[in-house]
Amino acid sequence: MAARRVPAATVAIDGQAAAGEGKAPRTERGRRTQQAILDAAAQEFGERGFHDASISGITRRAGVALGSFYTYFDSKDAVFRALVTHMSSQVRDHVAPGIRAAKDGIDGERAGLAGFLGFVRDHKEIYRIIDESEFVDPDSFRRHYATTAERIRQRLTAAAERGELRADVGEVHAWAIMGMNVFLGLRYGVWDADLPADDVAATAAAMLRRGLAVQPD
Amino acid sequence: MAARRVPAATVAIDGQAAAGEGKAPRTERGRRTQQAILDAAAQEFGERGFHDASISGITRRAGVALGSFYTYFDSKDAVFRALVTHMSSQVRDHVAPGIRAAKDGIDGERAGLAGFLGFVRDHKEIYRIIDESEFVDPDSFRRHYATTAERIRQRLTAAAERGELRADVGEVHAWAIMGMNVFLGLRYGVWDADLPADDVAATAAAMLRRGLAVQPD
Repeated sequence: MAARRVPAATVAIDGQAAAGEGKAPRTERGRRTQQAILDAAAQEFGERGFHDASISGITRRAGVALGSFYTYFDSKDAVFRALVTHMSSQVRDHVAPGIRAAKDGIDGERAGLAGFLGFVRDHKEIYRIIDESEFVDPDSFRRHYATTAERIRQRLTAAAERGELRADVGEVHAWAIMGMNVFLGLRYGVWDADLPADDVAATAAAMLRRGLAVQPD
Repeated sequence: MAARRVPAATVAIDGQAAAGEGKAPRTERGRRTQQAILDAAAQEFGERGFHDASISGITRRAGVALGSFYTYFDSKDAVFRALVTHMSSQVRDHVAPGIRAAKDGIDGERAGLAGFLGFVRDHKEIYRIIDESEFVDPDSFRRHYATTAERIRQRLTAAAERGELRADVGEVHAWAIMGMNVFLGLRYGVWDADLPADDVAATAAAMLRRGLAVQPD
């Protein structure tokens, strides 16, 4: 396939990674190669951990030459950083349609958790990678959770402004919900899928719906 | 002080560690030495991480001879394993009086979270150590969270049996609450203490109280 230029907005892994790594592909073919390297990196880091993972292990899994790796990433550290941002974006994009289609704010959180559990069951390596970023790249770890919590806070605030939730929902609730999702994902996504994802999400959402309801007084 | 035998129930770091490591001190003096080694290990692993931490770094911080270390622990892995169990027990013992003194089940969860945030602010290293156990000693990591969630589930079930909470509280709620506590501890304990611990705990508990209330139907 002939290489062709793709719009600037689509070439970067995402805004943060592009700013951090600065090696955005200039062609659609390049974008696919970069994507294949990131998918291979998720397997390599997920199975072997950062220290035992190698660039040659990544290129072997991706079926690309070592030179292609260095076209897009400077180092093992750089591809790991890009991968954390990439996985963070993947989760966001995976759950977004369910949240948008929901009938209200709490139903959106239910759909978001159900989508997240589904994603985790198919991508168990995400836990090891995000968790290991606390040690390998603390800035990425912090950015991942700060960004996720802020997204939840904005959704809660919007729902409160629509009159669906108590007016004082805020950052503490957002962090509580994120933590709930992360640990339900660990228990019912990574460790064991002994309950349907929809049941887990419905139970958590029922607690939130009553817990964050508009105050009667 | 003359060495004296202490009751068997108090010599072990705790049941799990004793079973796992099998070097329980036989005297009160030995117990204090083992405690000093564990406190030093918390500093060493917390500051340097498992891979860069060393046994000599631990004994230097503890002010004990290398031989004393090997009286109680076989290896760096062994002291790390014992430390995870020890910190897990420390948290449990730190929050237990507040939970026992609470006026009902949800007030107990509030007191438990407030106590946990206070503990975390004084022992920020606990996050790095527990989180790193996922990679260094996955069994300890899993046991820590499985045990903590089961403790919460038992408290919720007891409160439901007293008629304070909806009858169907269970494991999903327990994991949700644990995740909430872990991430509120990360945000308001480790990262920043910009809100009073009591306020964070009260906000979370208000959500739980309404969220887990007995159903009106």
